[in-house]
This record gives sequence, C-alpha cells and structure tokens, in this order.
Amino acid sequence: MSEAPYKLELIALEGVPLVNAGDNLSAIVVEALARSGLTFAECEVLVVAQKIVSKSEGRLVRLATVEPSPRAREISRIVDKDPRLVEIILRESREVLRMRAGIIVVEDVRGLVLANAGVDASNANADGGDESVLLLPTDPDASADRLRDELRTRTGVDIGIVINDSIGRAWRNGTIGTAIGVSGLPALLDLRGERDLFGRALRTTDLGLADEIAAAASLLMGQAGEGRPLILARGVPYDRREGSAHELLRQKSLDFFR
Amino acid sequence: MSEAPYKLELIALEGVPLVNAGDNLSAIVVEALARSGLTFAECEVLVVAQKIVSKSEGRLVRLATVEPSPRAREISRIVDKDPRLVEIILRESREVLRMRAGIIVVEDVRGLVLANAGVDASNANADGGDESVLLLPTDPDASADRLRDELRTRTGVDIGIVINDSIGRAWRNGTIGTAIGVSGLPALLDLRGERDLFGRALRTTDLGLADEIAAAASLLMGQAGEGRPLILARGVPYDRREGSAHELLRQKSLDFFR
Repeated sequence: MSEAPYKLELIALEGVPLVNAGDNLSAIVVEALARSGLTFAECEVLVVAQKIVSKSEGRLVRLATVEPSPRAREISRIVDKDPRLVEIILRESREVLRMRAGIIVVEDVRGLVLANAGVDASNANADGGDESVLLLPTDPDASADRLRDELRTRTGVDIGIVINDSIGRAWRNGTIGTAIGVSGLPALLDLRGERDLFGRALRTTDLGLADEIAAAASLLMGQAGEGRPLILARGVPYDRREGSAHELLRQKSLDFFR
Repeated sequence: MSEAPYKLELIALEGVPLVNAGDNLSAIVVEALARSGLTFAECEVLVVAQKIVSKSEGRLVRLATVEPSPRAREISRIVDKDPRLVEIILRESREVLRMRAGIIVVEDVRGLVLANAGVDASNANADGGDESVLLLPTDPDASADRLRDELRTRTGVDIGIVINDSIGRAWRNGTIGTAIGVSGLPALLDLRGERDLFGRALRTTDLGLADEIAAAASLLMGQAGEGRPLILARGVPYDRREGSAHELLRQKSLDFFR
C-alpha cells in the first residue's frame, strides 16, 4: 500500500440540479465541478448518491402501473404496506429474509441485504405524481463504470467512483452511507500481508474501504434532500486497481446471520 | 438541525507516541495537537482509536494469568482458539450468538455485537511479552466523557469525542470503523421531523452519525499500526447535545438478526 496521507477532504459539489430520467450524469458532474471551482486529480474519489443515479437511469416506477401478485397481497397484509409497493420490492429481490410491520428485509437482485430492496418513496416523484417510487440502479457497478468512463473522456482524469445509499444494519440503530457501486478503486482492502507494530500478522484480514468512503460522504449529503448528492473525496489512501461493490457482499454460505 | 457546511476535513494528528498503561490521554492529545500546529474549535470532533484508550486504561491482560473455565475449554475446541483467550472473551460477554473456527460472535458486556468481544491480540504487547491481549475499555462512553472534560480543562474548548474500533458486520465483508464511545455529540440523528423535497416525511427515521464519523476517521487511521490513532474532524454537521454510543445499540427485542 502506498504511504497514507494525513489529511482527507470531503467537498460537496455546489448547485447540482434536480435530476430527471435521461439526464447525462457526467455532464451534471462536470458542470457542478466547474461551478464549485474544482478540478479532478488522479486517485480522487467521487461519491454519488444513489438517488440521482437511479433518476438519471429512469428507475422511477408509478404504482398505478403495477399489478400485485397474490403473494404480494398476502405480504402486504403482514407488513402493512401498499400491495403494489410490495410487488415492486419482491420483483427487486432474490429472497425475503425477515418481515414485520413497515419493513421487509431482503437479499435484493444485486445481492445487497437491506430493507425493502432499497425501494424509496421519498424524493421520488420528479414527474409530478405522488404515487411513484424509486428503485436502485439495475447494476450499480456498471453505472459507476459508465460515469467514470464518461468523466475520463470529459476531463482527462481517471477518478474513482463510489455510489452510496443509506442502509440499515443488523444490531445497530441508524442507517449509514454504504457502497452499492464501485469503479476504479478497491472496495475491500486485503490486509493479510500487513504486520502490526510488533511484526505479527494482523488478525483482521480486510477493511471495507468503499463502505468507509460511502459513510464519510454521507455526513455531508444529509438525508432530507438532494442538494448535495455529489461529494469529492481527496486524500483517501488506497492503491489503484479495478474494484466492484460485489467484493463487499458476504457469500450466503459464510454468513451467520441470514 | 443547523445549516450544514459543505466541506469536511479529517486531519491525523502527528507524532502520537506509543501509549502505555497509566498514560494521560488528554496530555498526549494536547501535545500531538501542538506538534501538528492545530487548535480545537467548538463542534469539532476528535476520533480516538480504541487501542490507545484501552492501553492508557491498562486493559492489557497476560494470558499466563488466566485460568480457563470448563466452558472456555469446551468452546476453545470448537473455535480452535487458546482456551485462556476464550475465557477472556467469555468474561467480556453477555451472550454467545454464533461460533465457528477462529471466531466467536457475542453480545459483549457493553452491548456491542461483535467478533471475539473485541479482544485483540495484535499491537497489544507493549509490556514486552508476546502473550498479552487488549480488551475494549470497560465503559467507552465514560472514557470519552473523561477525555472531553480533561481536554476542555486543558484547552478551554468543548469538543466532541468518538472512540472508534474496526468491527465486522452481518452480510458484508470487511470491518469498518464503528463508534463504541461518544461524548458531546449525538450518536444517532433523529430525522423524523425532516421533510423531503416534496414535503413528505422521510421514511428513514435516523442516521448513525457517530458511526459515519468513526468510519470516516478509520480511512486515515489504517489498520497496521498505531501511528495515526487521533483524527480531528472539522465540519461535521450536527446540533450540539449530549450523546452516548448506547443510542446506536438496537434493543435485542427489536433485532431480527440475533
């Protein structure tokens, strides 16, 4: 690992507009960067809120267009949710792990374990309706790769991308910013080669680097709006390589808590 | 909530010495702060690595002094660990949740759910022996309160304190920096009063603020040593209040994944 710097800066890009389906995210980023008086440098990481990625990709679904299955109707009675919303959550999921009033914990089609498959009814109705919900990007790693490629073309600089979302955890209260898409940096740092101060191999074998970056950026994004969905992280210590948010997903067979 | 700033800075304090039992942490912080050419300002947060708190509090235990119970011997065969280490882990725990080779997931005496009760065999033998392990602070909130009080006395500034440790999670690979002790700031931000861009109440009711700060600081601390155990966070947006890491602990009765 390269020598770590001693300072980390997180800067919210200014004046990001509301994003709609079909908008080009890389153009929005470059404009916001200029408006903020900033330029990219190698090894910087841009953290992008899932909501604007999903919106640009048209992942808004109108509930009126959804016909709930019998299973969705049954679950909707258990969890006290709109059966059309439950239908969408089931379509976005591989497996339902737990449910109770208001919440369905699933493994989603991307392999994430999270509440309600990340389907979000807040800040979603940019089309003016009040009955739309926003789904996670179909393939957040691919979304991150695409944005990175386009930004490299537009700016000449190859930065890292993390797409984050606020996700709940087992055992602990509160959501935290979590990496759902990664491009151009390791999501997981393997520390097995590292030695402690006394020369012993460390017991901890890996560090959730992209999750820590996602959490750090979330501190500036806030929850109540979309005003700060783009955070530039300067000084994150890592060695450049290709990466994927899948590195962070524990295999089901190795997971105690399913 | 006060208006959020748009920039967050994390700065590793320089030249922190190896910490030993009985050392005064506040004196070490003030010296490192001066060496780094920095001063504190209100609402800044100092993130302190658990290891130096534990060491200053003398939480190092020599395995040679530990007599394993029959239960510890039995578990040691299942998890393939030194029975004396298992004995220490059991003494630090309220309940064993899961075990397999190399790992015992517990609810510890502090209420944290984590592997091996946070008992750490790396970087622990400051006494020269190679058979010592380091336990978490007995009461990390109290440790944070004490450090905050002493720093207020020494510097005249009332900052927030987060004590962090690298902790594993359900479902996801990699440890991340996590708040185990908090003083002078909210650990959990209640967002129930907040409205989204379209005036609807947000579904997500709270944000793990201190955990996000702990994760952000962990990016600079690294895992392999103790060179950067003190990270000053400037620009974290929060409204001042008293806080506790207990806010982050989900009640067992509300937890799906025990």
